[in-house]
Amino acid sequence: MANSSIHEEVLQGLKWRYATKQFDASKKISEADWKVLEQSILLSPSSYGIQPWKAFVVTSDELKQKLPSAAWGQNQPKDCSHFVVFAARKHVDQAYVLKFVQRTADVRGMDVSSLNGLRDAILAKTSHLQDHQSWTARQCYIGLGFLLETAAMLKIDACPMEGILPDKVDEILGLSSTDYTTVVACALGYRQPTDKYATAEKVRFEAGDLVQIL
Amino acid sequence: MANSSIHEEVLQGLKWRYATKQFDASKKISEADWKVLEQSILLSPSSYGIQPWKAFVVTSDELKQKLPSAAWGQNQPKDCSHFVVFAARKHVDQAYVLKFVQRTADVRGMDVSSLNGLRDAILAKTSHLQDHQSWTARQCYIGLGFLLETAAMLKIDACPMEGILPDKVDEILGLSSTDYTTVVACALGYRQPTDKYATAEKVRFEAGDLVQIL
Repeated sequence: MANSSIHEEVLQGLKWRYATKQFDASKKISEADWKVLEQSILLSPSSYGIQPWKAFVVTSDELKQKLPSAAWGQNQPKDCSHFVVFAARKHVDQAYVLKFVQRTADVRGMDVSSLNGLRDAILAKTSHLQDHQSWTARQCYIGLGFLLETAAMLKIDACPMEGILPDKVDEILGLSSTDYTTVVACALGYRQPTDKYATAEKVRFEAGDLVQIL
Repeated sequence: MANSSIHEEVLQGLKWRYATKQFDASKKISEADWKVLEQSILLSPSSYGIQPWKAFVVTSDELKQKLPSAAWGQNQPKDCSHFVVFAARKHVDQAYVLKFVQRTADVRGMDVSSLNGLRDAILAKTSHLQDHQSWTARQCYIGLGFLLETAAMLKIDACPMEGILPDKVDEILGLSSTDYTTVVACALGYRQPTDKYATAEKVRFEAGDLVQIL
């Protein structure tokens, strides 16, 4: 059983976080904090571990200024410190699967031929999937979950954002002709003291309504 | 900036976790730990906060014995302590939106009519969505992310499982004629010392390959 201090620390972080509407544009995430946030993105799991997405992290002011136009005028992308765009692979083709299998062999010091079973299992899955992107997009949301919980543990404010125009974000970030397309984003930074949502009661359904023990 | 001990604690948890293949069926998650895991499910964010999914937590031996048949014979659902099935709403209808808006008013002590703008925004979104379930399913994955990271912080083993047959899990859990359908699951509990995956090197692409600063 974990000790009660980590229990308190996790609960406190999860209750503290909220979808930040107003960021203080003058406050930036430190390099030490960013390293941990980046690791939480990198270490988040995915189906077979194939990580069929990338995270594009916008910190340049020039790009940030363009983003509200791709987010229904919302200012979080512009005012936050780091704006993380999760972009899913449009297609998990054979070359990508082979690259992942080779990476596995390299990291684990194995002969790549010993991973033929893994390779074939993934290729069987991808060849049967009609819509790769609906599968790869879901994996982005695990990364989003890890990023949000890690930010909460570090007391860094965040706003997960689905209300963005993927095509327009792709265009601004230069992704349009790549293998990746925008799925969801997350603004990270520090709240303005005037953000009234910070003190609004958190709304959730009753535990018994959402979680049922069988 | 967060202090370095929470940095270390988060990183250590994320590196410690792995997709557990063999669970020790004799070890159960304590009530105190489960309460925190449950809260992490409940507190995970979702689009508009509408929580368009439920978590069904299988602890009964009778149900657990049936689950490997819905998971390509994998034993994690049977041998773990708590098997969490994330089931997405098939459709976010007007009644559900009104229930959420009423809940918001109740929790925040507001007059429900002051939330007409929120109500209309959500109804506009849902009326334009062709496929509600692909949207609600993605929200499940945020919950999965929160559950996995919380488990890691508590040193509870976990195995995220997409390799399940949703229709069959629905049938076993009695969900087939409900508004919810199985999307993804997560086995939670404690590893067997014989699970060789516990010591295998974690495979991830290079940080510079997955995360790009713009």
